Formats: sequence, C-alpha cells, structure tokens
Amino acid sequence: MRIVILGAGNVATHLAKAMDENCGNVVQVYSHTLKNAVSLAQTLRNAKPIDDFSNVTRDADLYVISVKDDAISTVVDAIDVDAGIVVHTSGSVSVDVLNRKFEKSGVLYPLQTFSCDVAVDISAIPFFVEGCNEITSSLITDVAKRLSHRIYYADSAQRKQLHVAAVFGCNFVNYLWLQADEILKGAGYDFKILEPLILATLDKAVRVSPLKGQTGPARRGDIDIINAHKRLLTLDKATLYQMLSQCIMKKYDIDYE
Amino acid sequence: MRIVILGAGNVATHLAKAMDENCGNVVQVYSHTLKNAVSLAQTLRNAKPIDDFSNVTRDADLYVISVKDDAISTVVDAIDVDAGIVVHTSGSVSVDVLNRKFEKSGVLYPLQTFSCDVAVDISAIPFFVEGCNEITSSLITDVAKRLSHRIYYADSAQRKQLHVAAVFGCNFVNYLWLQADEILKGAGYDFKILEPLILATLDKAVRVSPLKGQTGPARRGDIDIINAHKRLLTLDKATLYQMLSQCIMKKYDIDYE
Repeated sequence: MRIVILGAGNVATHLAKAMDENCGNVVQVYSHTLKNAVSLAQTLRNAKPIDDFSNVTRDADLYVISVKDDAISTVVDAIDVDAGIVVHTSGSVSVDVLNRKFEKSGVLYPLQTFSCDVAVDISAIPFFVEGCNEITSSLITDVAKRLSHRIYYADSAQRKQLHVAAVFGCNFVNYLWLQADEILKGAGYDFKILEPLILATLDKAVRVSPLKGQTGPARRGDIDIINAHKRLLTLDKATLYQMLSQCIMKKYDIDYE
Repeated sequence: MRIVILGAGNVATHLAKAMDENCGNVVQVYSHTLKNAVSLAQTLRNAKPIDDFSNVTRDADLYVISVKDDAISTVVDAIDVDAGIVVHTSGSVSVDVLNRKFEKSGVLYPLQTFSCDVAVDISAIPFFVEGCNEITSSLITDVAKRLSHRIYYADSAQRKQLHVAAVFGCNFVNYLWLQADEILKGAGYDFKILEPLILATLDKAVRVSPLKGQTGPARRGDIDIINAHKRLLTLDKATLYQMLSQCIMKKYDIDYE
C-alpha cells in the first residue's frame, strides 16, 4: 500500500510513523513548509518531502489529509487522485468535504491529544472510521486495524458528539484541574498530590459509572461545607463552585436551601 | 504500639488493616453497631470489637477516630485516655476539636476515596499530618511513614484548601465525566472510550501543568465550534458548556465575540 501524508503537524507525524511501520510505505510527505516535510520524511523509511501540491502523486492507494480543520478544503481543491482513498483525520469536519470530489473518501479520527515530542502507544488509541460507502469504510477499517486494536465506526453526526464529549471530559476537566492546581499552590502543595485521588475517581467512573461514582459535599447536600468552601475561594472560583454544586444537587434531586 | 480504632466505615477499615500490619497491634475496634465492629475486628490479628465507649481502654498508645465529621465530637466527649495520642482522619475538621480535651492530639488525613470492597495500595496514598505540638506531630509522622511513602504536613487551614482542591479536581471533574458519559451514550458509545484521552490529559497536567496543558475550542477561541457544540446539546449542558468556555477564554485573555 502506497501512502501519501498531507500535513506534518502532531497528528500527521504520529500517524505517518505508525502507518509506515504497520500499513505500507509512506511515499510522500507534503507540508506547506518544506523544512517540516523534510523533518518528518527523515523519520520514515522511504518518503519524499514535498511542498508543492502539483508534485503529489496521483496513483497512491491512500491519501491522509491531516491539517488544520479550515485548511482541509484547500488540500481537497489542490490535489487530484486516480483511484486511491482520501481520508481526513478531523473530529469536527464532515466527510462531505471529501465526498464532493473523490470517489473513495472517508475519515480516520484518532480520539487522542498528540504532542510531537511525546511517544504515544498508538495501538491503545481509539480510532473512529467513516467511509463514503460500505466498501470504502471496510478498506479504511482494514488500515485502522493495523494501527490500533480499538476501532469504532462513527458517522459525521456521531463524530461531533464524540468531540463535544471530549470537550467536557478532557478540556473542561483540565480547566477544573487548573483551579485545583491554583488552590494547592496557594497552600504550598504541588498538583501531583491530587493524582492518586483523580486516578481512583476515574477508575470508579470507568468501572462503575460517573453517575454512581459521584461523591462530595454537593452530592451529600452538605450545605455547611459548601458555604465554608465558598468563603475560602476567590470570587471567580466561588461562583464556579456554586454553579457546579447546584448542577450536582439538581441532578441528584437534592434540595438547595 | 497498641492502637484503638474508633469507627468501622471505609476509612477506618482500610486504616485499621494497614496499621495492624505495619504500625503495631490494633487492640480494640469500636463501632456504634457491634456487628460492624465484629466484621472489622475479624480481619485483624488480635482486636476486640466493642460498641460501648466505657469499654475503650485508657492505656493505648494511639486512638484513631475515623467516623463522620459531625460524630467526631461525640467520640471526643465519650472517651478518656491516659497518655496516648488521639487523632482524627477528617479533611474538614480542625484539630482543635481534639485539642480541647487531649494532651497529645492531631490529624492523619488520607487524601483518597475509599470503598470497603476495593483493595487500595495504601502506600501510594498521600497522608497529611498535623499535631497539636512538634513532638506529637513527629510521633504521628512516624506512624504515617509506616503506612505510606507520601507524607506531608498540613495544618487545619491547609487541610481545608486540600479538601476544596479535591472537590474541584475530583468531585466536579466526575460531574463533567457524567456529562461526557451521557453524550457518549446518546451516540452509542461507552464512557470507557474516553479513558485514554483523559489519562493523556492528566499526564500532561501532572508533568507540565494544567495551565500549559489547556486545549480545546475555548482555548483556541474557536467561536464557530463553540456555537456548533452548543446547538448539539440540551439546554442544561449548553449552559454549562457556555459558562466553562467563558471561564477558559477569560483565563487566557481571549475575546469572546
């Protein structure tokens, strides 16, 4: 299988390496910035770095567009392919962007945050596959299964739900960890001391459920502690504390006096 | 060292077992409900179950009060000790509750959520120690070091900050996982698929910092995605999404149009 990687960012880098090892030969790496294409191509077995769309080969088997969401359509407009499959790797962009031009198109969305400098065990990452038709879906799934053992199907509507779930479960959660970090620093502690408790909370949420795993002052309806905590906090943090406590009490039908 | 455990709940159970193995002999287990005292005492080497405060021995070396916060003062009123150290295990209660009666008193607060039926590696749990004076502090620290390799000092003010940080970092976080769980269920997926991404987010927060690890639509100021996500959500979830996105944009000085 001859593969072309379009993009040289974090996702493109991790995918290119894993695909070159497990799925076939990455023959070209395109980046707007030649230097980035060269850096990535050097880590692969036999890939040519390019920075001009007109040099993209027409006869590869798989084209992986892994660029920023709003640059995907630029790549679509700029490349022509004979019979290969064209996929993008975005959680937010519909497959239609590819569909309107390419006969075999789809999505290969890894639900993970990548950093170029951090090694990732790609085989444990959940990948979500969509194809413009059943045959293409199945071809993309075959590729995905060589990368990871966690392959799921997701159409564009499901992928949007996955993305918004990840915003709640990771981005917003990180913001709450930031609040905890600031409070801990103020008391002379490192955020790391909270890690065992966070891991135990996550473990319970995964093994049982977040619904049954909910604990804390709001879940118990402990108004005295809630008020005492609010008095300890800055205005912004107290407002957030109040709002989230009310959400929890509402969820569990606990009266707020 | 002769130890008396007062309480037979989750924390008392885990501490009693660990102390009986590593710190000395648990000689008595008190519970308001004899059956619970018996159950716990049976798991220990040589402990007597009791349900009457008048039977609590006066000459133990360490008394561990591990009951609900609002029951601590009842235990304090009910027991008399000759020269032993009396500690409670609460994150929210001041050491003064013990101080007013006992010469040697303090706190031994494990920052962890316990379930009776789940085995816990107690040696990895952070314990926070306070003593009414330096000698007592140091004695309690000696006990704590036999339980865990993560021992910190925390006075009552610091312990309150630890508790409120844990509410943000664990209780409120679990509530956001609940939102994610509901969204994922609606799209036909299990919460478990988010676990690798959550672990990667936590890893980054611990190794770098939550401040630098923040990602997502709000951090990028991606108003289009924020609005698209809000349209996908129920009113309650959209309100929470909006509120948290605004908090993040404010924190990172991103204009909200």
